[in-house]
Amino acid sequence: MKATVFVRLKREVLDPQGDAIKRALSVLGFEGVRDVRVGKLVEIEFDDEAPKSPDQIKTELAKMADELLANPVIEDARIELSPAAQK
Amino acid sequence: MKATVFVRLKREVLDPQGDAIKRALSVLGFEGVRDVRVGKLVEIEFDDEAPKSPDQIKTELAKMADELLANPVIEDARIELSPAAQK
Repeated sequence: MKATVFVRLKREVLDPQGDAIKRALSVLGFEGVRDVRVGKLVEIEFDDEAPKSPDQIKTELAKMADELLANPVIEDARIELSPAAQK
Repeated sequence: MKATVFVRLKREVLDPQGDAIKRALSVLGFEGVRDVRVGKLVEIEFDDEAPKSPDQIKTELAKMADELLANPVIEDARIELSPAAQK
């Protein structure tokens, strides 16, 4: 069973890495880019030997995001189960 | 118009950051995690003043990924237009 946690900076937090990419894109000749934001994604694969329900997985992932994967002060985390896990 | 480029390490490339997260999750008491992989996501917002077709945007994003956002030797890039842009 697989899940992905998407971690993004909150809207109101400045993103210097995104700004650097925006400038670099402009230098490379790409036009019309208004804004760039960078986040990360964490793909987690669970053992199938002790299967958990999608709800259990979601609760666990929210806890993981809170405790380790994201910094709740400046980041938001979104959880997505892979289609196979949602069945 | 918005798009997201998801950059992931190729399957055959070792991911020490993912391994570190896996170990940390185990130390924190989360069980049953078989594998963790870390990637990044780049959200790009385009100017609406010079609108481009979804196909144009996709071609441009593939070029951006190739030239700047991903390292094609060890990473794969997947492009996703936001629902509003696909209309």
